[in-house]
Amino acid sequence: MIEIRKDLPKNEWAIIAPVRGDRPFDFSSEDKDNEKTSKDCPFCPGNEDQTPPEVYAVRAGDQSDGSDWKVRVFPNKYPALDQDGTSSTIEGDLFQSLGGFGFHEVIAETPEHEINLEDLEEERIGLVIDTYLERRKELGKNTEIKYVSIFRNKGKRAGASLAHPHSQILATTFVPRIPRIEYHQTESFHRKTGDCFYCRLIEAEKREARRVILENEEFIAISPFWSRFPFETHIIPKEHESDFGASTGKEISGLAKSLKRTLTSLRSELGDFPYNYSIHTTPVSEKENDPKLKESYHWHLEIFPRLTNPAGFEWGSGNFINVLSPEEATKRLRSNLD
Amino acid sequence: MIEIRKDLPKNEWAIIAPVRGDRPFDFSSEDKDNEKTSKDCPFCPGNEDQTPPEVYAVRAGDQSDGSDWKVRVFPNKYPALDQDGTSSTIEGDLFQSLGGFGFHEVIAETPEHEINLEDLEEERIGLVIDTYLERRKELGKNTEIKYVSIFRNKGKRAGASLAHPHSQILATTFVPRIPRIEYHQTESFHRKTGDCFYCRLIEAEKREARRVILENEEFIAISPFWSRFPFETHIIPKEHESDFGASTGKEISGLAKSLKRTLTSLRSELGDFPYNYSIHTTPVSEKENDPKLKESYHWHLEIFPRLTNPAGFEWGSGNFINVLSPEEATKRLRSNLD
Repeated sequence: MIEIRKDLPKNEWAIIAPVRGDRPFDFSSEDKDNEKTSKDCPFCPGNEDQTPPEVYAVRAGDQSDGSDWKVRVFPNKYPALDQDGTSSTIEGDLFQSLGGFGFHEVIAETPEHEINLEDLEEERIGLVIDTYLERRKELGKNTEIKYVSIFRNKGKRAGASLAHPHSQILATTFVPRIPRIEYHQTESFHRKTGDCFYCRLIEAEKREARRVILENEEFIAISPFWSRFPFETHIIPKEHESDFGASTGKEISGLAKSLKRTLTSLRSELGDFPYNYSIHTTPVSEKENDPKLKESYHWHLEIFPRLTNPAGFEWGSGNFINVLSPEEATKRLRSNLD
Repeated sequence: MIEIRKDLPKNEWAIIAPVRGDRPFDFSSEDKDNEKTSKDCPFCPGNEDQTPPEVYAVRAGDQSDGSDWKVRVFPNKYPALDQDGTSSTIEGDLFQSLGGFGFHEVIAETPEHEINLEDLEEERIGLVIDTYLERRKELGKNTEIKYVSIFRNKGKRAGASLAHPHSQILATTFVPRIPRIEYHQTESFHRKTGDCFYCRLIEAEKREARRVILENEEFIAISPFWSRFPFETHIIPKEHESDFGASTGKEISGLAKSLKRTLTSLRSELGDFPYNYSIHTTPVSEKENDPKLKESYHWHLEIFPRLTNPAGFEWGSGNFINVLSPEEATKRLRSNLD
């Protein structure tokens, strides 16, 4: 049974999702080679029966679970949340929990088994982003769901268990810690200055230029001043918008373009590198969506190359040591774009 | 130059510590075998000249940097903070930073190159804890220092670059994120209930018994209800005390005993496993030390076995998925103690 438990001293939620009870599970699997060939990869066309039935696809025909798809979405076979579970709360002074209800989906981004996201044509990356938007909208219709986390794990060191290009979605009955603190901090900035923090940041970064990796009409990619990791990169829409869900044609293709160029530049620098990215946006639930957020929050995408290993200081303090300045990271990434 | 920069949207500090500027540093070193034999290990007796001069030692003779030590403390050769740096603040709406001033020390815990902490005699583990206390007191005398982080990285996957048993200390001019939020949350609990959160938790865990791994007269080791990682373990003093620094003989030997038994039980379960631990306590600076903390906070030690790899969901949301329930973890760890 999946349960979401409150870490009261740290004001966080932990999802307790024991996998298949008594089976002695293998914690060292990270070190093994889990890469499958195209033939036995459950995310490859022809193997649709190896995943739960699809919930969405971009395809030529109209045969659900057929092999003619460009992007395909299905529930995770080993979900961290239970779409048939309860969302009921257990209140207590010391022990608080939520039922494990929520959605955990996989987005197979392309039929090709061995390709990097950045090597897809812009239009194909656009289809992936469009799929993010469709699924977020659909899952957001469930009145119990408060936030939809959209993220990508690339490479074993970044937590990917399968090599086939894919993203994941977790739709939760709570708003996670990081968006919560971002809402709080940017609202307080807005209250003090009347401005959106990220709009002001974009202006300042354009003026300073030392941390701007690239920009196009719609997006800007920067190495944040406070980068926690070497080559951490944020891709931010230049026009103020709190909600990723408001993206349409122009924004989708602008984001596809920025992602393709940023990931290509990072790969030129780092080789075939492990990374995570995640989209930071407003809650999907109306109730959680403080109208002030519309003015004060600004959605964006954060990329974390997984080159260094957070250790005792990081886990104990919650703060990070970064051995590469963002100014130096920018210089290197820009030189790859020339 | 080391700089500490504020992540305003996340209300955190990032330490930007570029190592040796132009040298092309190797980010994939984690995968290489950095283990040195005793002969060329800079932490081994006889190689004292390979580290900066010691700042503290437990030894038979009185020759500083001699080889007859039991525990030896010296500045980290590649420090994340600069003990000759400035602590001056640069204020700004968007960009805030602190100078890189602070201390980063290494504690070689034993002259033996190949031994696990838990295989040392209790009394020897006590000497290590006593050294934590001595260094924290000494570094806390510096009026710029607000918090002293004491932590241990064991194994490459837990961020250790050298195999010789050692702990580390980072003394910072800021109070890190996690202790800050713990102070805030437990103060608010105390205000509401009149009780210390951890004192109440110990009572409840003893009553429920399902998450108590072991206890002795002074300490209790539990798998927290909200465990973020498989086999996460907290060791908590049973008597209320906010400040690790108040520990004396009885507490030192009680902690040594709990640590030895807990790590031994974890190793029985997991083999030679990578882990981090860190001590969570009050600030060292009088100014930061809100007198209310004395009542509301409760110091403890947190152990994180590094068996799973935080991925896109964790980095994007700040929340964790744990595949093993703490009740099951406790059952397994207790069975190793029988």
